[in-house]
Amino acid sequence: MSGNTFGRVFRLTTFGESHGPGLGGVVDGCPAGIALDEDVIQHELDRRKPGQGLGTTSRSESDRVRILSGVYQGRTTGTSIGFSIPNEDQRSRDYGRLETVYRPGHADFTYQAKYGIRDHRGGGRSSGRETVCRVAGGAIAGALLATMGIAVTAYTVELGGIAAGSVDMEAAANRPFFAANRDVVPLWEERIKAVRDASDTLGGVVEIVARGVPAGLGEPVLDKLDARLAFALMGVGAIKGVEIGSGFQAARMLGSENNDPILAQGFASNNAGGILGGISTGQTVLIRASVKPIPSIAKPQTTIDTQGREQELRIGGRHDICAIPRIVPVLKAMVCLTLADMLLLQRMQQHP
Amino acid sequence: MSGNTFGRVFRLTTFGESHGPGLGGVVDGCPAGIALDEDVIQHELDRRKPGQGLGTTSRSESDRVRILSGVYQGRTTGTSIGFSIPNEDQRSRDYGRLETVYRPGHADFTYQAKYGIRDHRGGGRSSGRETVCRVAGGAIAGALLATMGIAVTAYTVELGGIAAGSVDMEAAANRPFFAANRDVVPLWEERIKAVRDASDTLGGVVEIVARGVPAGLGEPVLDKLDARLAFALMGVGAIKGVEIGSGFQAARMLGSENNDPILAQGFASNNAGGILGGISTGQTVLIRASVKPIPSIAKPQTTIDTQGREQELRIGGRHDICAIPRIVPVLKAMVCLTLADMLLLQRMQQHP
Amino acid sequence: MSGNTFGRVFRLTTFGESHGPGLGGVVDGCPAGIALDEDVIQHELDRRKPGQGLGTTSRSESDRVRILSGVYQGRTTGTSIGFSIPNEDQRSRDYGRLETVYRPGHADFTYQAKYGIRDHRGGGRSSGRETVCRVAGGAIAGALLATMGIAVTAYTVELGGIAAGSVDMEAAANRPFFAANRDVVPLWEERIKAVRDASDTLGGVVEIVARGVPAGLGEPVLDKLDARLAFALMGVGAIKGVEIGSGFQAARMLGSENNDPILAQGFASNNAGGILGGISTGQTVLIRASVKPIPSIAKPQTTIDTQGREQELRIGGRHDICAIPRIVPVLKAMVCLTLADMLLLQRMQQHP
Amino acid sequence: MSGNTFGRVFRLTTFGESHGPGLGGVVDGCPAGIALDEDVIQHELDRRKPGQGLGTTSRSESDRVRILSGVYQGRTTGTSIGFSIPNEDQRSRDYGRLETVYRPGHADFTYQAKYGIRDHRGGGRSSGRETVCRVAGGAIAGALLATMGIAVTAYTVELGGIAAGSVDMEAAANRPFFAANRDVVPLWEERIKAVRDASDTLGGVVEIVARGVPAGLGEPVLDKLDARLAFALMGVGAIKGVEIGSGFQAARMLGSENNDPILAQGFASNNAGGILGGISTGQTVLIRASVKPIPSIAKPQTTIDTQGREQELRIGGRHDICAIPRIVPVLKAMVCLTLADMLLLQRMQQHP
Repeated sequence: MSGNTFGRVFRLTTFGESHGPGLGGVVDGCPAGIALDEDVIQHELDRRKPGQGLGTTSRSESDRVRILSGVYQGRTTGTSIGFSIPNEDQRSRDYGRLETVYRPGHADFTYQAKYGIRDHRGGGRSSGRETVCRVAGGAIAGALLATMGIAVTAYTVELGGIAAGSVDMEAAANRPFFAANRDVVPLWEERIKAVRDASDTLGGVVEIVARGVPAGLGEPVLDKLDARLAFALMGVGAIKGVEIGSGFQAARMLGSENNDPILAQGFASNNAGGILGGISTGQTVLIRASVKPIPSIAKPQTTIDTQGREQELRIGGRHDICAIPRIVPVLKAMVCLTLADMLLLQRMQQHP
Repeated sequence: MSGNTFGRVFRLTTFGESHGPGLGGVVDGCPAGIALDEDVIQHELDRRKPGQGLGTTSRSESDRVRILSGVYQGRTTGTSIGFSIPNEDQRSRDYGRLETVYRPGHADFTYQAKYGIRDHRGGGRSSGRETVCRVAGGAIAGALLATMGIAVTAYTVELGGIAAGSVDMEAAANRPFFAANRDVVPLWEERIKAVRDASDTLGGVVEIVARGVPAGLGEPVLDKLDARLAFALMGVGAIKGVEIGSGFQAARMLGSENNDPILAQGFASNNAGGILGGISTGQTVLIRASVKPIPSIAKPQTTIDTQGREQELRIGGRHDICAIPRIVPVLKAMVCLTLADMLLLQRMQQHP
Repeated sequence: MSGNTFGRVFRLTTFGESHGPGLGGVVDGCPAGIALDEDVIQHELDRRKPGQGLGTTSRSESDRVRILSGVYQGRTTGTSIGFSIPNEDQRSRDYGRLETVYRPGHADFTYQAKYGIRDHRGGGRSSGRETVCRVAGGAIAGALLATMGIAVTAYTVELGGIAAGSVDMEAAANRPFFAANRDVVPLWEERIKAVRDASDTLGGVVEIVARGVPAGLGEPVLDKLDARLAFALMGVGAIKGVEIGSGFQAARMLGSENNDPILAQGFASNNAGGILGGISTGQTVLIRASVKPIPSIAKPQTTIDTQGREQELRIGGRHDICAIPRIVPVLKAMVCLTLADMLLLQRMQQHP
Repeated sequence: MSGNTFGRVFRLTTFGESHGPGLGGVVDGCPAGIALDEDVIQHELDRRKPGQGLGTTSRSESDRVRILSGVYQGRTTGTSIGFSIPNEDQRSRDYGRLETVYRPGHADFTYQAKYGIRDHRGGGRSSGRETVCRVAGGAIAGALLATMGIAVTAYTVELGGIAAGSVDMEAAANRPFFAANRDVVPLWEERIKAVRDASDTLGGVVEIVARGVPAGLGEPVLDKLDARLAFALMGVGAIKGVEIGSGFQAARMLGSENNDPILAQGFASNNAGGILGGISTGQTVLIRASVKPIPSIAKPQTTIDTQGREQELRIGGRHDICAIPRIVPVLKAMVCLTLADMLLLQRMQQHP
């Protein structure tokens, strides 16, 4: 209830601050018999590691995950899966002034307002570092989905206002920025450099697709699949908008344009994004998320301190220029977690 | 778990099909002592009634709500509030063919895939008629919010591709289409007529604002206020996209443009849409939702029947041309329900 | 969260006061395709009707249930099942003085303490009348269980301190008091008469058995089947104790006596009550509940009014002498609801 | 949903097997500002340590807890509190044969039936060792309760069939067996020795009282305080019965005997156990739990192996003779967790 658990029946509960001893979580509800080991999780964690390219901090996090329970001889046992990811390379001294000054665009002000106390070091619980636990949980969800033939892919379709155009998703996992195609990469690199030189930051748009989703996932009317996906993605820091299928464009289309005709061999188009009435159609599920620019900028900003006095703030330290690419595996993880949950809920409809 | 309950602690559970005996619901978690009677709910229900203007069906639903429990001498008692809204004026015969043919853009196909059985009459549970219960529940939530000085308003900012431009929200409740301003109304009426004459339908964009929301609502990191709002709105049929604050535009802004400076007297702008780190800032909460065109069109469409054979379908009967304006009170209700829930969750932080 | 929903995935939400317009509820999570109609529910409701024998009030409640949704052509559709049970024959005038005086052994004092307001008429929400909704929900759960070959039976094993001795459960449903055997009935009738003549009330012990429960139900370690059953039964007004299998007697047994040996053909005994480690063994599930005497007695009692002043109270009106037999179908319903919930949870373990 | 989370809003999620790398958990929902450090938790853990007296195993678990998050400068921050308790001194070889043989009275058979796979080493997840996480979570709950003046005490009132008689609860924490009084201790020690010499085990009865509980806790009608307490206690391995107040004795009392008169200065007795209508009265909350004898006995037993063949089993290794005293702090912890949860739920009733 207090916000650290995700999911109804396939549930991830997480904990951990940026500069505490470590982070971790518990996955409850994963069926028994799923092949799982630390490598499966580590592979996903490595994809969100910093220091992998332009626009990301050089903080050297190793992010080594350890499975503490729920797996025996390489298979899940049906009991809760605990995991831990210790913190390393914390430089709390970098954050000294932030104890008393609220960074614009960050959660400093709101955590103080909500709790009356906060761990300011590195953003504490509100740090992007929290997302390692989502990625770990998402990897476990992905292992379950894989047994059903469901595969989730995420890639970047726009960065700093430059759209990728065409999508060639297969190789995206190995491209810089998880770019939708290869040609846009140099344009984005150029844009990143220019913005970095201007002591500023930028955002972009990420697309996530899920293939192999069977028809029938989603619990209408108040727990629709699209609603749950929007919840999952909007719950990632930096996300300000979410679209399914034709999304905001649907508002400008006619019914005859937006409707997907149904042919004997299947749907003729996919403006619905693979979801009708909150239930999957069996088509590819298609979602897009808007990523805001990183709020930690080196430019001077006006803000207040904990006494309410105005201050000029320049944020030093190591920071990313763009939440992309590191946010991409996080968004993928959230979709995996959501689908795993809806998959198990749908099992309750099964007859003996 | 199966999708008919909304909320964690202020909870609405609903039931009812388009052509069954009636609809209704239960609100659980409403604190005792809140002023409430049937008029408070009826007032909101009347705002989503059909037959109120251009683009809406002439089906004469009276939608009379009856409170069955939880209120004594005009005040809530803390026990569950049951309410019922009987169905009237059902013409099941209009839907005869739809027993065996899946309407494109509707949930017919997916309900069949999920459950293996469905009440096809008027869309059954997937009918927009289901939203009367959301509006009733939202009215109860609104009564709670009002005691805290929180007011939610919803209005249309775009219809059929024509943006309203300026927003004058105060009188929106009494304008056709709940239009953001008066001048755009004739343009939208003209657009509706043209589309109706072409046997087609259209969509639009609705904006919802919540004023008076105190700082501190929202449960990070996995149950953020913006995530919950996205869930609430995307869970309404016809919604395909949701934005908070600068939304998709944030993806094209620099950090220095998108950050809201904090001055001694408060935030200097509101690109955040009143939410930082998933917690309300105390500013106005600002959300937008994309409404797809009504899928029931009179134009011929290709689809399949329950045997998988292709069919040409022309949908007759009484149908709206646009989900706006009827969806507007529904979106408002969903925001009220979400805020009421987050408000009660935040109370648990209070010290004696 | 506020106490009007039972179950995790097979969920019953109820509402209604003793003297309001009516009671009702919503069952969410019932799979599609289960045979269900009003007669199935009515049959169970009729078993808890008043006026059926010694020791029960002559208030003539007809308790007619109406299914409002979720059933189409005699089968559940997978959508939420709403039902209503209107109130009749309310004599609110009988309860006039109880507006300002707290009845000992009743919830008057605690509702006032909790909510600061209460509907005193007939006990309002705390009335035993609330249990009609449990019985209705339990009947729906029972319809699901029946498709799996699970049958739940409840009968009385002790009344007014007189134990029944042997159990012949098959005909219990048709015996007065749902008595465990026929011979004890006249003894209990005599005891009831004597107590009634003394203006007093009495209690008893009810046993509930579930046969056909497959091995594997129950979610360890914190949501064990026995824990859920204890929760279900202790949540019925008047219940003060719950035992599984050897129960309190287990505290006095040796390990070698209490352990159930496992033979090739199955367990040699059932001290476990059909549950080990919180998971069903495949044996009969066996539970007992202690029913306290009805607190509404005609004898004078000392209590206080809402101003805290001591008062002498004699409770008139129509009241049962013993919660048995009317509580018996309620306890059965609670076990059905619990098993249905655990059954669906267990389905999530199933592999494709 | 899958059984590893306890509580609705003050929630404990646990993980860990007897012979895995370690155990741990997450407490979510603890309000900010509560004084908390590892010593507070360690103090409770030390009370359930083995090797502290007659009847307990000599396995030397140090059970050192580490807080990983959610506490900053000695106060809770409102974010999730992660904790870990590494395993030490595991002798997996002791359990070799148990991979293929089901121990009577244990969960071996049911885990296999439920999950089709199990970690047999030391009982895996079904081991009593799991309760260290309950005790840790209960200690955090207790820290919250202490700020409200609520104190929970647990003590043994019966062991091996020998009742303690009078209760002097103040010094129970420091007595062997957490005995209700000092005089019964030598009788119990004698009984334990005799049973141990006979290669057998025994059980007992524990009483738990909560003082300082304000009136108003409990969410009727389906989430009553007594129901939640029964759930909490029956969910501990070895518990077979739970009573509130007069408990099973209530079934044999008259209404006039069982009702607690209300005087101007308060209730004249406490047969209700501090709960009426599922809501606390403000009196002491009083509960009793029946503890079954430890199922691991050195005597030969008949059982089956995983192939269904009958086997004779003598359980060697280090095992307790009685779950008492080690279960006593666990039962206390469960009551603390329940009360903390109900306390936060009740806060939602508070008006601004």
